[in-house]
Amino acid sequence: ADIVVLPGDGIGPEIVSATLPVLETIARRHGHAFAFREHDIGGIAIDRHGEPLPATTLEAAKQADAVLLGAVGGPKWSDPNAKVRPEQGLLAIRKGLGLFANLRPVRPHPAALGASPIKPELLEGVDIVVVRELTGGIYFGDKTRSDTDATDLCRYTVAEIERVVRSAATLARSRRGHLTSVDKANVLETSRLWRDVTTRVMREEFADVTVEHQLVDSMAMHLLSKPRAYDVVVTENMFGDILTDEASMLAGSLGLLASASLGAGKVGIYEPIHGSAPDIAGKGIANPYATILSAALLLRHSLGLEEEAQAVEHAVDRALDDRVFTADLAAPGQAVSTADAAQAVI
Amino acid sequence: ADIVVLPGDGIGPEIVSATLPVLETIARRHGHAFAFREHDIGGIAIDRHGEPLPATTLEAAKQADAVLLGAVGGPKWSDPNAKVRPEQGLLAIRKGLGLFANLRPVRPHPAALGASPIKPELLEGVDIVVVRELTGGIYFGDKTRSDTDATDLCRYTVAEIERVVRSAATLARSRRGHLTSVDKANVLETSRLWRDVTTRVMREEFADVTVEHQLVDSMAMHLLSKPRAYDVVVTENMFGDILTDEASMLAGSLGLLASASLGAGKVGIYEPIHGSAPDIAGKGIANPYATILSAALLLRHSLGLEEEAQAVEHAVDRALDDRVFTADLAAPGQAVSTADAAQAVI
Ligand SMILES: CC(C)[C@H](C(=O)O)[C@@H](O)C(=O)O
Ligand SMILES: CC(C)[C@H](C(=O)O)[C@@H](O)C(=O)O
Repeated sequence: ADIVVLPGDGIGPEIVSATLPVLETIARRHGHAFAFREHDIGGIAIDRHGEPLPATTLEAAKQADAVLLGAVGGPKWSDPNAKVRPEQGLLAIRKGLGLFANLRPVRPHPAALGASPIKPELLEGVDIVVVRELTGGIYFGDKTRSDTDATDLCRYTVAEIERVVRSAATLARSRRGHLTSVDKANVLETSRLWRDVTTRVMREEFADVTVEHQLVDSMAMHLLSKPRAYDVVVTENMFGDILTDEASMLAGSLGLLASASLGAGKVGIYEPIHGSAPDIAGKGIANPYATILSAALLLRHSLGLEEEAQAVEHAVDRALDDRVFTADLAAPGQAVSTADAAQAVI
Repeated sequence: ADIVVLPGDGIGPEIVSATLPVLETIARRHGHAFAFREHDIGGIAIDRHGEPLPATTLEAAKQADAVLLGAVGGPKWSDPNAKVRPEQGLLAIRKGLGLFANLRPVRPHPAALGASPIKPELLEGVDIVVVRELTGGIYFGDKTRSDTDATDLCRYTVAEIERVVRSAATLARSRRGHLTSVDKANVLETSRLWRDVTTRVMREEFADVTVEHQLVDSMAMHLLSKPRAYDVVVTENMFGDILTDEASMLAGSLGLLASASLGAGKVGIYEPIHGSAPDIAGKGIANPYATILSAALLLRHSLGLEEEAQAVEHAVDRALDDRVFTADLAAPGQAVSTADAAQAVI
């Protein structure tokens, strides 16, 4: 399989370097051949090519079986009014590959619960996947700016809603059979359309999956007060951005959360949900587990290697059971390096 | 003083009835005369007048010194595609009175911490006021709907941002001198304008107040992981809706959270942040404290009666110290009624 590797900025190169040997180990043990091709994205791409997503990177990703991404951005490129910005690379590659469904699993590992701000008794048995719509909504609508005002247009088409709801409902069917759709239908027209389309798709195509509708503000509460109540949660781009970061707090550390961005084809982008953490970049102390778990999602969703995906997930679970913790999770003086954590998984 | 009372729907009438005697007690003890005039809003206004905000209600509110509101909405009027909906009344009265700044204080009371999903050690000393922009943004932008798509326009003007930032910064100055402004400047044009205007206003007019900018997704995490770090938080309408409901979880119960919606004049709307709770309506068991604390904000902000406001707040604190709890907070079998809780405050 042909895997495009986009280390990006900050801790991106370190966590990606720590992850590739895990994939190589899987390839060796299970008799696969993985070819890794590295390309630039984000700040480093701006520095080297003048743009956050060079055409060569997008082309390589389109040809590949899967994309493994580190993180983009950093203080060097952080002026929100700059004409070219690292995040544009991320938005453009998601859109360019048509990756409309962003899966973010949240399943707190018992050993990491101490690091969560949530009371541990609420977290036992929590197992949620948030499916965030990733190529529509206010992120991609027309924008204007004048001396006196600014606008962003939020737009959703029926087709955009249908396809992401189908992805989420299919996933729910393979799990506990429950879908929660989040919108703001009491205020937004796009949310009323979202609710109507979701209701119809679920009735016509997924009668075996239960569906519940939640307003985004209530959901921001219920996610904390009764996280066990959720199985698969589907929502639009902006609400998904906020709710997944909130949900990450259930897992104790951002450093444990993987994501898969999927479209109609097999190519997907796999990346940790955390950012480029410039404050700890270059020190070799970043937590590689989220990237390693993203590689497991890559094996599962783009390469169809379920057994191999589970082998990686179990190895990370075992490392956590053994309290092989980087600085974000460890007690003072007990932290291991990025490389050591990856070695424990291998 | 002339106070317009809008009980609304569900538990609205009960919690408002429980609160008026508190205000009457204050009036008697401190030698004030309060006249209460009741009007319809929300579902009950749709039933009686065919519209969620009758002109008589808006006119009365405009003439009044302050408005005390219960809650609106309920299953009877819950079809999001209905032409008239209870929430429209709420949005229309906020807009009609020009109430652009919605203050939502979050200060967990020690006796209620057990009910919060957050670990108690993180909550000690938390004292945040979220100032939510209330009459702009995607809530009030043009909306379209066709067979194939829907749109909502998010628009902010420089003037809209300036005035709410000034309110929030003035409040921060009277507190711990720290303002956190929340946006999504890495993606939205309205957020880049928000950040630019905030930066300028703070530099030119509030050099004594420190300001920090946070992306909304990070803020959804930090609010949980380090709530003590925040003093005053200012943000746009939609982000404020989500973040304040999330922040309410810090306080243990939604039933304790008051709000004040303020504009350029003295009239304001004071309401609990919880909804109409149709499931417990009519049973006399709803928590009246959020409405009573909203009445305290009314005394402070619209009537300029600081001492009286504090008297009410201290009385609620004392009732909580004494564990006079309604069903949302009480241990099984220990709950008091709405009326008893209000009586304890009196
Ligand atoms: C960097 C930013 C554009 C991005 C987003 O908002 O989608 C990030 O927050 C994420 O969630 O992947
Ligand atoms: C009822 C609804 C329109 C309202 C809002 O979103 O503003 C409510 O959630 C609130 O926060 O007061």
